[in-house]
Amino acid sequence: MTKTEYQVVGTRPVRHDGADKVTGRALYGADFQMAGLLHGAILRSPHAHARIVRIDTAKALAYPGVKAVVTAADFPPAPDKLVDFGEGATPLAYVRGNVLASGKVLYRGHAVAGVAATSAHIAEEAAQLIEVEYEPLPCVLTAPEAMQPDAPILHDGLRTAELGEKAQGRSNISEHFRHILGDSKKGFAETDVVIEREFSTATVHQGYIEPHNATALWNNDGRVHIWCSTQGSFVVRDATACVLDIAQSRIRVTPMEIGGGFGGKIPVYLEPVAALLSRKTGRPVKILMTRKDVFEGTGPTPGSYIRVKIGATSDGKLVAAEAYLAYEAGAYPGAMVGPGGMCVFAAYDIPNVTIDGFDVVVNKPSTAAYRAPGATNAAFATETVIDELAEQLGIDPVEIRLRNAAKEGTRRADGPKFKRIGCVEVLEAVRGSEHYQSPLEGPNRGRGVAVGFWFNVGLPSSCTINVNADGTVNLVEGSTDIGGTRTSVAMQAAEVLGIPVEDVHPSVVDTDSVGFTAVTGGSRVTFSTGMAACEAAGDVIRQMKERAAKLWETVPDKVEAGRGSFRCNGHSATFKELAAKVGETGGPVVGRATVNPRGVGGSFSAAIADVEVDPETGKTTVLRFTSIQDAGKAIHPSYVEGQMQGGSVQGIGWGLNEEYYMSRDGMMMNSSLLDYRMPTSLDLPMIETIIVEVPNPGHPFGVRGVGEANIVPPPAALANAIYRAAGVRMRRLPMSPPAVMEAIWSK
Amino acid sequence: MTKTEYQVVGTRPVRHDGADKVTGRALYGADFQMAGLLHGAILRSPHAHARIVRIDTAKALAYPGVKAVVTAADFPPAPDKLVDFGEGATPLAYVRGNVLASGKVLYRGHAVAGVAATSAHIAEEAAQLIEVEYEPLPCVLTAPEAMQPDAPILHDGLRTAELGEKAQGRSNISEHFRHILGDSKKGFAETDVVIEREFSTATVHQGYIEPHNATALWNNDGRVHIWCSTQGSFVVRDATACVLDIAQSRIRVTPMEIGGGFGGKIPVYLEPVAALLSRKTGRPVKILMTRKDVFEGTGPTPGSYIRVKIGATSDGKLVAAEAYLAYEAGAYPGAMVGPGGMCVFAAYDIPNVTIDGFDVVVNKPSTAAYRAPGATNAAFATETVIDELAEQLGIDPVEIRLRNAAKEGTRRADGPKFKRIGCVEVLEAVRGSEHYQSPLEGPNRGRGVAVGFWFNVGLPSSCTINVNADGTVNLVEGSTDIGGTRTSVAMQAAEVLGIPVEDVHPSVVDTDSVGFTAVTGGSRVTFSTGMAACEAAGDVIRQMKERAAKLWETVPDKVEAGRGSFRCNGHSATFKELAAKVGETGGPVVGRATVNPRGVGGSFSAAIADVEVDPETGKTTVLRFTSIQDAGKAIHPSYVEGQMQGGSVQGIGWGLNEEYYMSRDGMMMNSSLLDYRMPTSLDLPMIETIIVEVPNPGHPFGVRGVGEANIVPPPAALANAIYRAAGVRMRRLPMSPPAVMEAIWSK
Repeated sequence: MTKTEYQVVGTRPVRHDGADKVTGRALYGADFQMAGLLHGAILRSPHAHARIVRIDTAKALAYPGVKAVVTAADFPPAPDKLVDFGEGATPLAYVRGNVLASGKVLYRGHAVAGVAATSAHIAEEAAQLIEVEYEPLPCVLTAPEAMQPDAPILHDGLRTAELGEKAQGRSNISEHFRHILGDSKKGFAETDVVIEREFSTATVHQGYIEPHNATALWNNDGRVHIWCSTQGSFVVRDATACVLDIAQSRIRVTPMEIGGGFGGKIPVYLEPVAALLSRKTGRPVKILMTRKDVFEGTGPTPGSYIRVKIGATSDGKLVAAEAYLAYEAGAYPGAMVGPGGMCVFAAYDIPNVTIDGFDVVVNKPSTAAYRAPGATNAAFATETVIDELAEQLGIDPVEIRLRNAAKEGTRRADGPKFKRIGCVEVLEAVRGSEHYQSPLEGPNRGRGVAVGFWFNVGLPSSCTINVNADGTVNLVEGSTDIGGTRTSVAMQAAEVLGIPVEDVHPSVVDTDSVGFTAVTGGSRVTFSTGMAACEAAGDVIRQMKERAAKLWETVPDKVEAGRGSFRCNGHSATFKELAAKVGETGGPVVGRATVNPRGVGGSFSAAIADVEVDPETGKTTVLRFTSIQDAGKAIHPSYVEGQMQGGSVQGIGWGLNEEYYMSRDGMMMNSSLLDYRMPTSLDLPMIETIIVEVPNPGHPFGVRGVGEANIVPPPAALANAIYRAAGVRMRRLPMSPPAVMEAIWSK
Repeated sequence: MTKTEYQVVGTRPVRHDGADKVTGRALYGADFQMAGLLHGAILRSPHAHARIVRIDTAKALAYPGVKAVVTAADFPPAPDKLVDFGEGATPLAYVRGNVLASGKVLYRGHAVAGVAATSAHIAEEAAQLIEVEYEPLPCVLTAPEAMQPDAPILHDGLRTAELGEKAQGRSNISEHFRHILGDSKKGFAETDVVIEREFSTATVHQGYIEPHNATALWNNDGRVHIWCSTQGSFVVRDATACVLDIAQSRIRVTPMEIGGGFGGKIPVYLEPVAALLSRKTGRPVKILMTRKDVFEGTGPTPGSYIRVKIGATSDGKLVAAEAYLAYEAGAYPGAMVGPGGMCVFAAYDIPNVTIDGFDVVVNKPSTAAYRAPGATNAAFATETVIDELAEQLGIDPVEIRLRNAAKEGTRRADGPKFKRIGCVEVLEAVRGSEHYQSPLEGPNRGRGVAVGFWFNVGLPSSCTINVNADGTVNLVEGSTDIGGTRTSVAMQAAEVLGIPVEDVHPSVVDTDSVGFTAVTGGSRVTFSTGMAACEAAGDVIRQMKERAAKLWETVPDKVEAGRGSFRCNGHSATFKELAAKVGETGGPVVGRATVNPRGVGGSFSAAIADVEVDPETGKTTVLRFTSIQDAGKAIHPSYVEGQMQGGSVQGIGWGLNEEYYMSRDGMMMNSSLLDYRMPTSLDLPMIETIIVEVPNPGHPFGVRGVGEANIVPPPAALANAIYRAAGVRMRRLPMSPPAVMEAIWSK
């Protein structure tokens, strides 16, 4: 089908949950109410690293209104159990340890105990009455420090998985992997110019508006019901079951609306604590985080130390590249350096590559995903080195990228060979854009470009579609909606059914009421749940043909269906007309599908940034910014643009301002939204967008997924722009006014 | 399969919703809470029949805290529209009229206006400030009175559907049907003995514990969300859509738990009013009925006037029968005399039958279903006449029934021919029972028996089953659970899947989240939704075979499945083991089925009653009572027994005590549970039960449905017992102490 054949895909209907959202009717986790509800609070560590000598809960328990206190001692025993969330075996002790500390605290803000009381205020007061005796230990806050031989060790039992083998000695490095393609040493020998640079990026937070929240009811029949805002109701179900060591089917998770996630609302923090408190009290327990809890107690995305070395011939052909990526895992072994290694050179066809990745535990909160996790750090390094190479070789920065752009058949150093991808098309869109073609004039101004990649994921999704007698359908899905996916999924069903999208009523239901559906993350929902919706709609069409055949006394195969009508032998009926007759032709029609798709298509994104740098203060003002992204197919272009704008703004914040500003002893000094300065609409121009559509052959409409790649290029594009505006190459994030001033002074 | 082959069917597991019910966690309609909730009240007519001259809502609207008032004038215009709920076309004006009176009030308690206010007390106060000017009209309270040529007419536009033809003149008779089999006149000529008797039965109420309730939110996007306790969430959806003249898919109904229904929680009363009030206020509106509202404003089951004439040969062969059934419809045309006509002689194979049925409007609340609606009235007549015939012919009352019992192939006068039924087996169970074999001794004591029939219904149901990785499944259904059907449906799925029923988690979800499912009524859920569960489970097994085939590198057809395990070529896996591998073999497994089954199997029930009648007061004490019923197959025998006991107790209350005690001007004088005397556990012996199992060939396990037939025989069995105890033939219900005394005195 070509674009013009679509009735629904590619249009911009009003979102199904729009009215609820703008009128305040939508219920978020904090809105949850229930008779007999208790309120919980979490006691958090004041130390970044300390041994827990003793916990005395007596005073807290004696406080009027307090109903229960829990610590890690309340977890059921499971010594040395390993668990596997599909990423390899992890000790259950680590998973539990981040929920409630056991033996040691590993970061300031680490949860130590939970209290349930008749009011939130009583719970907070009582939490402060829990006496914890700590033996403080020296702390370590960055990957390079933590990798020193004499660094304080966080986990006595941690051994490095060193290039696949388990090392013997104690270490803070949980994993060292190496990807090799060709022979980079030999490759560098063939180059005319080689540039090698060091980079560091700060720990940053996703900064979603809504703090984490969870309510749990441990029912008398042993089943646990959890209400929370999460990116994955089944993730919460399965992770909580794992932490509590009970069967996953004993837990029902009802996902509430979500006020932002960006990867940070995947791990469980409060849910198991609320569940344990509910088990002790027999009542539902709700726990809400403050903003400070969110900053100190949930997963930011890793700070990192990166070295990148790239060599090219004089005509701009990239021949060899090496990367050394040391990412902070936070307090427990992490998973973000892996994708960093997959993405660091993904935009380029380079024959000789070596990539070393290190996952390093430090005394900071355990890290979590944040839009294309790991890729932004890596692209900041690669894309500024490429810019420098282009400058040295006297080649246009877009041109050098185009000459070396990855395409169908290019093999990545981490293994896979690209299928049909849109890197070239994205770069051509940059070059052809009105923005890139326009001159940028004035002093202290500069323009930078960069490109980024995210591979996207598939994973299982389920969908059922119930046909109403009035010709509308109810669509049931398990994907929590963080970006308008109720609508982008419903649109695909509508397209297949040939009915208006307003006639599709999507519902995101609890884990007992829909088939297993993986996390809302990895830019997968419009791709994977969308595919499930297409297949469920196809299942409906198949059954409707059977019904038409019954009415018209023919066989289903002879009934033609398309664009919402059914035809055979001169008979015809619209979807609506046929829907009115399903009762008399055999009963209701319900379509269902489950998918675990393999045809995932990665997405490339580029950014063009125009900036002005104030030479007196070092402040960078973004004058103009364009985000370009390959959507494969934009189901709902407004939401694609929204994702591109959101990702760009977050990338700009990451690039220019945001960081966990830490004291030497591991205290975050700016744990409020006033001090942790995310850009607001007043700080930024309107973000311009260019959607590129290189269809993904692995999806019926060509969808790739657009939630992530757009955050990858902005910091590098800004660094390249700052260089042209102020003459300084920035190699540390954030490129805040003092950092830029320092660079100008050093020059 | 024979009984012993079942692992789950026929066992007595704890119900899935048991813990919630006994701990008070289950949420009923009145428990619903939401931010900004307004409370509604209904103004009801003080007259049984009056013209509404004027309604002035100004004072009510001015009352502090009042947010809106609605009357019938707030319905969108739909002049002369006809609607069809599958029972033939009905004027929308009638459907709406019972929700909010328009032009006239037709019974005391008829809803006239609704008020929404910030508290229920304010709403009640304000309702009384609505000024309604009435012009009272003469009222008519029983079918025989209403059928008089000079009776006050309720509906100016009502014309009798007279044996299929629409009559010309105004009348209170909405319908007259006639069923003919053979030639009853000729038949009576061949008989040796003929008995003809007149009967009347009082209006009685289902007497569920929980009053009606509804909360509605008319959302800004035009969709309406309703929370209520109902026997049919889709019925509420479709009926409310009809009353409000909007598309059914604009309404989402979330069924709350239900505190009894018995047929009375099928019609909508409060839902459209709450919806209109919500539309006016933009806020959710909750309305609860009081007990008085329930008695005066909801549907009791019809009072009736019945004549039955039966003729037999001297050897006890029934040759001819005639019935005249005039049932009160209440204020609007009703539907209960139809089933009365289907059931009146259904237990017997009589070659010559004529049945005349009349549906008659009277100035009482519009009637509703009540367990086998219409059949109990009819059986009271037939079964006491049969008893009299047996006495006259000197034949044992069970023997005469057995000689004439309906069996496979017997044609009913209303048309259908019986398939495999259990009438003979039920009567043989009576004859063989310890109860019937035991002598009953002592003065003023007597034993009576009777038999009754209910045809049961099929209707559409939907079910989906989602497989969890831990080997359990989540079952999603649309049938609200009024009798333990979560468990009886889950048991059937468990049996097909070969897993423990504890591993099936049933959920009753809202109308947006499951395929269309008809009302919980007609004894259909365990039959029809159970069949959907069986088919959905079969769909799961089919997919699990495909997964096993993939793992074992074979074709699905070669994989054998049974009793929860899968086998092929020496490989084998339990359901649990295979469930853990669905992720890697193609994604989640979801089974679904929709059914609209034709193989409904009717159920026969009998009662044996031993009574003692106090000759001084006329009070009848039930000494011993046994209920016998053909379940087809008892999926969960405890719930079958519970249905039999519940139906028996309601039949005993109907027989001995309960009635709408009306003043001449149509006021119910006993509209509280203190005065409307339903039997309590202190009034009754333990009800004994005998389950007969004559499998219904139309269901995989032979289920017939047991919710209704058991209420049919008790009043007749009691009348026959009273005759033997006190020597009087009772032909009026209830057979209360004054009625029995009067009969004794007349004798």
